[in-house]
Amino acid sequence: MNKKGLAILMRARMRPSDPSKILLSPLAEKVNRVAPDNQANQSGGSGMEPASEGGNEQTNFSCRNKRPFELVKESMHSAISMNKTEVLDDVLNDFTEGYFSLSGESHKALLLSLAKEYDLNRAQVRELIKQYLGLELPKAAPAEEGNAVEESSLSAFYRIERNLRHALKPAYEVLFERLNTHPGGLKFLSILRADILSILAEENIPSLRALDSYLKEKLGTWLSPATLELHQITWDYPASLLEKIVAYEAVHPISNLLDLKRRLGVGRCCFGYLHPAIPGEPLIFIEVALLKTVAQTIQEVLWDDPPILEHEATCALFYSISSTQPGLAGINLGKFLIKRVITLVKREMPQISIFATLSPIPGYMQWLLSKLASQLKLAETETSSDQSGSSFWENILEPEEERALLNLSEEYKAMTNGMEVMFNLLTTNDYTWTNSPELLSVLKPPLMRLCARYLLQEKKRGKALDSVANFHLQNGAMVERINWMADRSEKGQHQSAGIMVNYVYRLENIEEYAQSYFSTGQIHSSDDILQYVKGVEA
Amino acid sequence: MNKKGLAILMRARMRPSDPSKILLSPLAEKVNRVAPDNQANQSGGSGMEPASEGGNEQTNFSCRNKRPFELVKESMHSAISMNKTEVLDDVLNDFTEGYFSLSGESHKALLLSLAKEYDLNRAQVRELIKQYLGLELPKAAPAEEGNAVEESSLSAFYRIERNLRHALKPAYEVLFERLNTHPGGLKFLSILRADILSILAEENIPSLRALDSYLKEKLGTWLSPATLELHQITWDYPASLLEKIVAYEAVHPISNLLDLKRRLGVGRCCFGYLHPAIPGEPLIFIEVALLKTVAQTIQEVLWDDPPILEHEATCALFYSISSTQPGLAGINLGKFLIKRVITLVKREMPQISIFATLSPIPGYMQWLLSKLASQLKLAETETSSDQSGSSFWENILEPEEERALLNLSEEYKAMTNGMEVMFNLLTTNDYTWTNSPELLSVLKPPLMRLCARYLLQEKKRGKALDSVANFHLQNGAMVERINWMADRSEKGQHQSAGIMVNYVYRLENIEEYAQSYFSTGQIHSSDDILQYVKGVEA
Repeated sequence: MNKKGLAILMRARMRPSDPSKILLSPLAEKVNRVAPDNQANQSGGSGMEPASEGGNEQTNFSCRNKRPFELVKESMHSAISMNKTEVLDDVLNDFTEGYFSLSGESHKALLLSLAKEYDLNRAQVRELIKQYLGLELPKAAPAEEGNAVEESSLSAFYRIERNLRHALKPAYEVLFERLNTHPGGLKFLSILRADILSILAEENIPSLRALDSYLKEKLGTWLSPATLELHQITWDYPASLLEKIVAYEAVHPISNLLDLKRRLGVGRCCFGYLHPAIPGEPLIFIEVALLKTVAQTIQEVLWDDPPILEHEATCALFYSISSTQPGLAGINLGKFLIKRVITLVKREMPQISIFATLSPIPGYMQWLLSKLASQLKLAETETSSDQSGSSFWENILEPEEERALLNLSEEYKAMTNGMEVMFNLLTTNDYTWTNSPELLSVLKPPLMRLCARYLLQEKKRGKALDSVANFHLQNGAMVERINWMADRSEKGQHQSAGIMVNYVYRLENIEEYAQSYFSTGQIHSSDDILQYVKGVEA
Repeated sequence: MNKKGLAILMRARMRPSDPSKILLSPLAEKVNRVAPDNQANQSGGSGMEPASEGGNEQTNFSCRNKRPFELVKESMHSAISMNKTEVLDDVLNDFTEGYFSLSGESHKALLLSLAKEYDLNRAQVRELIKQYLGLELPKAAPAEEGNAVEESSLSAFYRIERNLRHALKPAYEVLFERLNTHPGGLKFLSILRADILSILAEENIPSLRALDSYLKEKLGTWLSPATLELHQITWDYPASLLEKIVAYEAVHPISNLLDLKRRLGVGRCCFGYLHPAIPGEPLIFIEVALLKTVAQTIQEVLWDDPPILEHEATCALFYSISSTQPGLAGINLGKFLIKRVITLVKREMPQISIFATLSPIPGYMQWLLSKLASQLKLAETETSSDQSGSSFWENILEPEEERALLNLSEEYKAMTNGMEVMFNLLTTNDYTWTNSPELLSVLKPPLMRLCARYLLQEKKRGKALDSVANFHLQNGAMVERINWMADRSEKGQHQSAGIMVNYVYRLENIEEYAQSYFSTGQIHSSDDILQYVKGVEA
C-alpha cells in the first residue's frame, strides 16, 4: 500500500454516526409517504396524499410526527392480534419500519401503550385461580409407582396450571415471539430493549419495568449459547462487520483502521459470537494478544512493536471484551465466549499455557472516593477522641501511609487526617498527582493496598462489588496481580487511578473456582495480592 | 461406474437398523463399566468393579439393568439441581449416555419419576395465589396516559405475576433448558419426546401427558423458523446425511442408492431444514420433481425415464414431505419449508409457474369403510321402510351407483343394499377388485365422488379431517384434482383405493387462502373437483 492510501486509511472517520439514524432515513420516508391525510382514513384505503399538501412547513412537520404514531400503533396492534398467517410479514415490517421513524417521546408513548394495553388479562387469571383453589391438594406422592387414583386427581391440576401459565403471559409476548421469527426481528427487539432501558434509566415506570423483565427473559432464551456461532474475526472479514468492531470496542477505543488492522494481525486475535438471525454483527467480541509473559500495562499490549511471533508466545492475554448490543444488557454472553475461546486457542496453539486478562477496575475510584468522603463526614461530626468509638468510622489508611500523606506539605499538616489529604489529591482536576514523582511515591502504597482490598473483600450480595471482577470470577478466574500505572489514559486514571488487574484462568481450576464463587462467594487469589490484604489483618 | 459397482450400489442395504441401537452400544458399555457393585456405592467413589463379577449370566444381566437405572436417575437429579457451573457438561453427558443404556421399561419409570418428582411446587403456587387474591384489581385504565397512582398499584401485580409465572414452571424445565444448550441435547430431547409419545400411545398417564405438552411447547420455541437453515440436498452431500434421507422417506420409500441418486439428479430437487444444533440430519425434507404438467400418478414421477431437462419444466411438483424426528410430532416445520422452497425455486427457475403436490389421502379408506360399516349396522337394526326416518341413516351412494353394484352378480343382488356390496368388495383381501376391469368401472364413480366429498366436506373441529389435506390447506393451498389409480402400491390401495390428490399453491392466493381456512375453515377447490360434490346437492 502506498503512503497516500495509508493516509486515507488513517484519516477515515471510523465511528458511524448514531446507528438509529442510519436506519431511519429511508424508512421514515416510507412511513411519511403512506401517512393518510386525516384520521378517518387510518385503515389505509384512499388517503394516499403527498405529505406536502399543507402550506405551512411547521404544521406539516408536526403533522408528520403525529400521524405516523397512530399508524405505527395500529401496525403494532395488527402484529399482535392477527391470525397466524403469512400476511404477518408485511405487518411486522410496517411496525418495525414505522418504529424507527418515530421520535424518542413517541417511542416512550408506544412502549407504554404496549406495556399497559397488551398486558395480561387479570380477570381471566383471577377466574382460573379460583378454579385452582377449588381443587383438593393431592397428598404427598406415595412410594409405590403408577398410582392411578393419584394420577387422575392430578390431571385437573395439570389442566388448570397449563391454562394459568398461558393466562399469565402478557399479550405482548405474541409480538416478541413473532418478531423473533421475523427476518431482522431479533435485532429489532434488542434495539427496542435498549430504548426501554434508556427510558427506565430516567424514570422508574413499573409497567415498563415489567415489560423489560419479560423481554430480557425471552432474549436470554433466544440467545442461548447453542444458537451462537464462534468466529475468529480477521482482516479478511467484510468491512461492514469490522466497522462494527471499531464502533463498539468499549474498553480501549480503536483510533483508526490501521489500529484495527494491528489488532487482527500478527500476534493478535479477535473472536466474536454471531447469531444467525443478526448476520454481519458480532453480539460480543474479545480481543486477545499473544505474548511471552502476562502484560502489566495496556500500553505494551496496544503498542508493542513489532509484536512477537505466534510460536514464541506462551500467554494468551484477553485485553478487551465488548458487547455490541446495549439491548442485551444483563444477558451473560461473555461467559461462554471466554470458555470457548480458551478451548479453541489451546487446541490450535498448544504452546500457549497461560490464559490471563489485563482488565480495568471500573468501580475502584468511585468506591474509594465515596469511602473517603463518608469517613471525612463522620470525622467532622464527631470529636476526634470519639472517632474510634463510632462503629462506622474507620481509618482506612495504615499509620505510615497517614504519616507520609500529612508530611507532604505544611498545608496538608493542617488537615484533619491523611484521608482528607488523599481525598483532596485524588479529586484535584486533571490528575496532577500523576505527574509528580513525590506524590506518586506517597500515594502508591495506599492506592495499591486499598485496590487489593476492593477487589478481594468488598462485596455486594455476596459477590464482588466490581462488575468486571464479578464477571471473571463467576467464569472461574482468580485474581492474580494488580499493576501500578498500567493504564495512563484519562479513562484509566478516572476509573482506577491507572491501576489494572490480571485475572488468570487456570484450566484445571476453572470449574472448581466458578462453583465455589457461585455457592459461597469465595474469591481465589494469588499469594502476591493476598499480601496487601494480610498486612492489614496482621 | 462399471456394472459390478452399480450392482453393489443397488444391493446396498440402505436402511440403518434401529437408530437407538446404533447409539446404544458404546454408551451402554460405558455405563456398565462404571456401574457400582452395590447400592451403597451409588455416589460413584470406589465401586469400580467389572460387571462380570457374578457367576450367573442371568443375574448379572438383570443386575446390569437395575444398577444403571439408579445411576441414571441420580445423574438426572444432578442435572436439574446443580448450580449453574461448567461441571454441568459432564453431568448432562452422564445422563444422556446413561439414558440410552436403559431398557424401555426403565425409560418409562425414569420419565414418570421426572414428571412427578420434578413437577412444580404446588404449595408455593397456592401461597402466591393467596397473595395475589389479596390485591385489589385496578380499575380499567383511564384514557389519559402516565397515571402515576395506577402505575404504582400495578407494581404489586407485576411482582406476584412474575413470581407466579416462575412458580408455575415445573422443575423439569431446568433439565430441558440445560439440555437445549448442551451439545447434542436438542437431538436428545427429540428422542426423549418420541419415547414419551410411544408410552402415551399405549397408556394415557396424565403426569406424562403434562410433561409431553410442556416439552412440545419448548421444542416449538427452540425450533422456530429463524433457527432453521434451508439446504438444497444434492448428491454431493455427505453419505451420512443422505443415508438419513433414505431411512426417513416416509411417503414413497427409497429402494436403493440408485433410486436416491435419481431423486437428487436431473429434473429433481430435494430441500431440507437443518438446525445448527442437530448437524448432518435434516429435520424435515421435501422432494420436488420438475415436470411439464402436473403429474396424475406417482409412477410417472418416480419412474419417468429420462426425466425432462430443467429448462423445459413449467411445474414444480412436491411429491414427498417427510419429517425425520418422531419426537417433533405436532410441530409444524413443513409450513415454513414449503413457503421458502417456493420462493427459492421461483427465483432460481423463473420458467416454473405452477407449484403443485401429488399427495396421498391417508385417511380416506378408513373414513369410507367406517362410514359404510356404520350405515350397514343401522340398516340391520331398523326395518327398511324406517331407514329414511332415522336421522343417522344415509345412503351415501347415488341411485345409479347402487344399481350398478347390485347388478354385478346374483350373489350381490341378495345383499341389503349397494353399500354392503361396496363394503364387501373393498374389504376383500389383496385388493382383487383392482384387477377386474368390470369391478373397476363400477367402483370408480362412487370412490371418486366420495373421495371429493371426504376431502372437501368432512371436517373435524372445523378443519379438514384428512391430515395431509389439513396440512396443505393451512399452508394456503387449494384442492385441484383427484386422480384415479394414481398410486398402485399396496400402501396406496390400502389408504385411499389408489386415489391421489393434487393440491396447488397459487402464489397470488396463498396468504388469502391460508387466512380464510384458518378463520372459517373454508376449503378452496377447483371447479372440476367441485362437480363431484355438486352432483349430490343438485
